[in-house]
Amino acid sequence: MNIGIPKEWNDPRVALTPPTIKKIKELGVEVLVEKDAGIASSFSDADFAEVAKVVDRKDVLAAEVIISINPLPVADMKNLAPDTLVISQFKPFFDDTIITQLKNMKLRAFSLDMIPRTTLAQSMDVLSSMASVAGYKAVLVAANHLPRYFPMMITAAGSIRPAKVLILGAGVAGLQAIATARRLGAQVEASDTRLAAKEEVESLGAKFVMVEGAADDSGAGGYAVQQSEDFLRRQREEVQNRAAKADVIITTAQVRGRKAPILLPKDTLDKMQPGSVVVDLAASTGGNCEMTKDREIVKYNGITIVGDSDLAATMPQDASTLFANNLVNFLKLFIKEGQLSLNMEDEIIKGAYITGE
Amino acid sequence: MNIGIPKEWNDPRVALTPPTIKKIKELGVEVLVEKDAGIASSFSDADFAEVAKVVDRKDVLAAEVIISINPLPVADMKNLAPDTLVISQFKPFFDDTIITQLKNMKLRAFSLDMIPRTTLAQSMDVLSSMASVAGYKAVLVAANHLPRYFPMMITAAGSIRPAKVLILGAGVAGLQAIATARRLGAQVEASDTRLAAKEEVESLGAKFVMVEGAADDSGAGGYAVQQSEDFLRRQREEVQNRAAKADVIITTAQVRGRKAPILLPKDTLDKMQPGSVVVDLAASTGGNCEMTKDREIVKYNGITIVGDSDLAATMPQDASTLFANNLVNFLKLFIKEGQLSLNMEDEIIKGAYITGE
Repeated sequence: MNIGIPKEWNDPRVALTPPTIKKIKELGVEVLVEKDAGIASSFSDADFAEVAKVVDRKDVLAAEVIISINPLPVADMKNLAPDTLVISQFKPFFDDTIITQLKNMKLRAFSLDMIPRTTLAQSMDVLSSMASVAGYKAVLVAANHLPRYFPMMITAAGSIRPAKVLILGAGVAGLQAIATARRLGAQVEASDTRLAAKEEVESLGAKFVMVEGAADDSGAGGYAVQQSEDFLRRQREEVQNRAAKADVIITTAQVRGRKAPILLPKDTLDKMQPGSVVVDLAASTGGNCEMTKDREIVKYNGITIVGDSDLAATMPQDASTLFANNLVNFLKLFIKEGQLSLNMEDEIIKGAYITGE
Repeated sequence: MNIGIPKEWNDPRVALTPPTIKKIKELGVEVLVEKDAGIASSFSDADFAEVAKVVDRKDVLAAEVIISINPLPVADMKNLAPDTLVISQFKPFFDDTIITQLKNMKLRAFSLDMIPRTTLAQSMDVLSSMASVAGYKAVLVAANHLPRYFPMMITAAGSIRPAKVLILGAGVAGLQAIATARRLGAQVEASDTRLAAKEEVESLGAKFVMVEGAADDSGAGGYAVQQSEDFLRRQREEVQNRAAKADVIITTAQVRGRKAPILLPKDTLDKMQPGSVVVDLAASTGGNCEMTKDREIVKYNGITIVGDSDLAATMPQDASTLFANNLVNFLKLFIKEGQLSLNMEDEIIKGAYITGE
């Protein structure tokens, strides 16, 4: 049995790294890596050649299992042999026609973003590991754009107050952003619709901003749920009060399969100070800030608004390492002694296997 | 008596800020600020209007004292009234013909970079306050370019080791870079030709890299001195051993009035890992890294090399605040009850006044 790792067509990351391939070979599998697949994430062909075969794209695409961070271009998928198992992030919760497409192409597919977010599956959760990288990087991007220091400075030329950072959404990305902003010495406030986030936020040294009356999300498997119009209005008011004093706002509020809620409408931006910075991690699903443009940096009234939902790709070496570690844990579930063994009774396999009946 | 603050022609900073103007008015002085002078450093004309007159450039240039971060364009200086006192950073240690030029234009001038670096003058030391901003920002720039995390990460997807950061030169910029890299959780090593730096480096939680036999710098007023060829060779060897393992190198070694020493020649870069990052703060005087291009980001063998000696300008709000605080302390020395009182017996005034006989 063999696994093919193509060079991503639109991303500097790579789905498996040399150290993880070593572990995968222990499962009795051969790995084929496309030439230059790791170059943009600082893994050379020589590094890969020690543990895998470095080959042309067509040989990679002939493998029985093909793993990629982003789905292969459709043109490539059309040429795959029937029954090839493709493993990627297909996002069927945004557009489920991909499932029919895959079936029509006679492919079998695991969508990594459909792995249930249970305790058992934590070590395979690519959404979490990539969100964590994005949360860290969001703070660095903000600090780089901010015309001020993050930490308090006491110098011979006088004292500088610490930056005030407001983080909207305390999921994985938000919590990592809190931790990073605290490391850099900022004063941090964070809000989340899930009351369960309060303790985590406070344990990281940030203040929790509470809005009462959020919808019950206990059955949502760790995802945020759609909130009522009344709740969203009160949340926007609370955010507006905080935003006026903030130097940096990092927004991370996404609702799976839906447009992101607007938490920073124009009239809130109008109350913010010139020089302040917004980093909007929900940009790809419409953004939490009204003026966000996905994958652009826009200026509005002296405020810098960075829209990027894919910041993990800007830290490709460690992001690839974490993604690949997740993959090893996932592959161990269903590769035994060089054979695929898809047990559809297994909750994780069943959840991620999107081309079943 | 009045002081004019022009809009800088090549810099987003501004020489005085609204809070500092308030203090300067207490010296019996009126301040004239050019329209839009603070816009790029997030101080609006409305902020300035509360404490100063916001006027056209020609009115600013008619003031008795003119303060700017960078020297005015020569075309402007030629039009100033005789005896106008211009205060800026003229860098006569690089090119002393500026002194003759100023005298020919019948101007009086303080060069802020000539203020003696004594304990008494610390609160006026713009070189230190700007170097401190640059050291902080150098780490943020490096962390933004690095394809890896700075902190150690222990996650469900495995552990990530902390980044290794090597800092060459432990002056003000280097020490602030050490402190910031430590905040972000990196492992930090630093070297300096001054043995006196060892204790400071270690107190910030970094390892001091020692090279024996440096030239005596006890009489150099806190500046680095020129080293012997033999010492520089041994220093390069030591640096090369460390550089091969480093993820980030920040170089800050400048020798006043001379070309910066090459600490990272090409053969050292050839030993470094792809993905690693060099930030060269000595870029404007030739750079500490052989491949550095001033104000450019170059790629060499997968290494990102950022050359920028003016990173303070990329954090213009707080940099302006610190610069302006320095200025208030300096102006207090020689403005008494609305009158200039240039006491040439005063060591600081004498040192900075470059148009005396």
